[in-house]
Order: sequence, then C-alpha cells, then structure tokens
Amino acid sequence: MPPFISFEGLDGCGKTTQVKLLADYLTQRDIRVAVLREPGGTPVGESIRTLLLSSRNRGLLPLSELLLYYAARNQNLHRQIIPAQAEGKWVLCDRFADASAAYQGFGRGLDLSLVETLDRMVSGGRKPDLTLLIDIEPALSLDRARDRNRRTGLDEGRFEAESLAFFHRVREGYLQIAAREPGRVRVLNGNRTIEELHREVLGLISTLLPGGQVDGME
Amino acid sequence: MPPFISFEGLDGCGKTTQVKLLADYLTQRDIRVAVLREPGGTPVGESIRTLLLSSRNRGLLPLSELLLYYAARNQNLHRQIIPAQAEGKWVLCDRFADASAAYQGFGRGLDLSLVETLDRMVSGGRKPDLTLLIDIEPALSLDRARDRNRRTGLDEGRFEAESLAFFHRVREGYLQIAAREPGRVRVLNGNRTIEELHREVLGLISTLLPGGQVDGME
Repeated sequence: MPPFISFEGLDGCGKTTQVKLLADYLTQRDIRVAVLREPGGTPVGESIRTLLLSSRNRGLLPLSELLLYYAARNQNLHRQIIPAQAEGKWVLCDRFADASAAYQGFGRGLDLSLVETLDRMVSGGRKPDLTLLIDIEPALSLDRARDRNRRTGLDEGRFEAESLAFFHRVREGYLQIAAREPGRVRVLNGNRTIEELHREVLGLISTLLPGGQVDGME
Repeated sequence: MPPFISFEGLDGCGKTTQVKLLADYLTQRDIRVAVLREPGGTPVGESIRTLLLSSRNRGLLPLSELLLYYAARNQNLHRQIIPAQAEGKWVLCDRFADASAAYQGFGRGLDLSLVETLDRMVSGGRKPDLTLLIDIEPALSLDRARDRNRRTGLDEGRFEAESLAFFHRVREGYLQIAAREPGRVRVLNGNRTIEELHREVLGLISTLLPGGQVDGME
C-alpha cells in the first residue's frame, strides 16, 4: 500500500507549499500522487469548507464545528484517500485528524475523548503513516493568515478573529501529539526558508521511497 | 420548564402544517411558542440544510449525512431549544433525533449505535417531552414530496431520488421507535383531513396545557 502522509501545523506555517514541492518531486520520479486537503477535495467537502470559513457562521459552536470537520473527513477518507491508495498513489493530505485534536480539542477546549470517538466512527482510528508537523510561532501564524486574507480577499474572517492565545493552545496541542507519537509525527522547524524545509521533508520521506534514497541529497 | 414537542414522519406527511396549526392555537391562548425545524433555524443550520438538500451532493455518504444532521442539531439545541425554554416558550420542532434513527439508521442502514453515540455527544441523550409521529403510506409520501418539488421549484433532487423501499424502511423505523417508547411517541394516522389531525393533536397535548383542558373540545 502506498504511503499516506499528512501535513499539519498552524495556518500560514507553509504546509501547502511543502505539499506541492513534495508532490512535484515525487511526480518527477514517476511516483503517482494524490494531493488532498481538509476540509475539501470532494464537492461535499468543499461545501463544508465554505461553511466553516464563512464569517457569517461565527455563531458556530465548537462541537458543531468538530462534527462538520468529521463529515468532510469521512468523505475525504472514503471517496479519495482509500481509492487513491487502491490505485497505487501516494496520498499527501494538507491536514487530517490531528488538526481536529489540536484545533477543536486543545484550541477550543473540547474533550479529546469526543475527537477519539469520532475518529473511531469515521476511520476506525486509522492514522497517516507519517505526519509532518511544521512548527512556527503563533504570532507569525496570525500575521501570515491575516496577510493572506487581505491578499486573496477571501472571506475567512472567522480565523482572523481568533486570539493569539487560541493559536498558542493549538500549537501546544500539536506538540503534545508529536511527543506522544514520535514515530509517526515528526516536528519540523518552520522558521526556515522554503528550500531548507523541503530538504528536510525529503530526508524524512526517504525511507518510504523505492530504494529508500533521495536523489541529489549530499 | 415548558414542553418540548417534536413532530416526526415521512416527507409530505403533513407535519409542517400541524406544527403551524398548533402554534396558532397556543398563541391564541397567550402561550409563547418557538417554532423550529431541523435541519435549519440557525444560520449554520440553514447552510447545512442547503448542503443536505442539494442534488449537487449526491455523493454524500450516509455517515457524513448523519454527522451533518448532528452538527445542525447541536446548533438547534443549544442556540434555540434550550434558550427558548429558558424564556418560558413551548418548543415545537419539525423533526429531531428520531429522524436520524429512522432515516440514517433504518433507512440507510447505519448502525443505530452511531446515532446513540452522537445523541449522547450532542444532547446527553435528552429527548423531547412528547413526539407526534404522523404516519402515512410511503407511496403517498413520495407522491407528495415530488409534487412539492415541482411546485416550489426547489432543488431537492436528492430526496426525490430515494426509492420507495427506502421510505418503507424509514416508516418501519419510526414505528419501531414508537413501539419502544409508547409514553413519549404517539402515532397519528396521517390519512385524514388536516382538521381531523389537528383535533387529535390538541387531544394529545391537552395534558400539557395549564388546566389540562383543550377549549372547545366536545
């Protein structure tokens, strides 16, 4: 079965860029790749994404938010991840279940047992083979997210409204998950150039490659 | 605490009309009423309703559908039902958790334990004080739903696409729930005139009225 790799981290940590660079790298080596994101990817997932990001829905309660993410995750897992792997593709997913534990659990204070119950319901507790957590300072995350919202003009007001304290709790949550599962979750220092981060990503996925070797690494 | 009454039954069974008639009856007697519907009622709930009813989302998996209904239910319960009761209002709700057991459980074949788990998560297993189940033939339900879709021009294609066998399973589910909880769930024969049904509704809610008496009943 080809590997399923998730990328995690605060908004603006650079994971979308790293997913793209890794996908390009693999494609150039004739490895077939499915690039996915949560929430989104399926028509249902994209509808849920729009709903979640709309500032019209600021009255959204934490548990409702969690249930919406899991509805999107259920579509993503069964309509995209599992079929892609069955076709022999590597799966690179921009966020997966760890994001729910970090954001809705640690960030919003929902009991983590709710996240675990939904995990079992949707995926039987199945986890990615490898999770790359790009760690950045919460203040940097907030700056980059605001900057992006201004640039794209997207109505992502709900995220902008989060406090710095919220992002500190989310980061702490991510680091706790990584400490609990060091074999699966690898922490990357996100305060570096895109190219430096990409080299580290290649180093971490090298054991998953046929032959276990990254080309052009010194 | 004022009563919380849910109305259940197949699409086209006439429950929306009966909710309205009962609300009018209560209002005329100076009883304050909150008329709610699921999914919907809150901005988030209405967004989820649109998503669920859109034929664009035919690829929606049963478990994703169930999670979306519970996200809407969580908003409805905590943003509307509980606050309305706290203000002294009777709550009349067009569908509640029994609909998930009947439609997603019995209808789509999801394990009922999933519905129960989500019930506990969202409402601590709390149920309406009284549930009025308007029972009609599945064939009649399908006819009326199609008729309504044509009349309103709404894009509710996902419902129309359901088979008669699906509605038979949903009806059977509703009747099993009623058989299991005869004190809470009362079955009304929906193959009668609107006025006859309304008289029966008034008889059933009479014990909840101050004084326990329905005006003008012989």
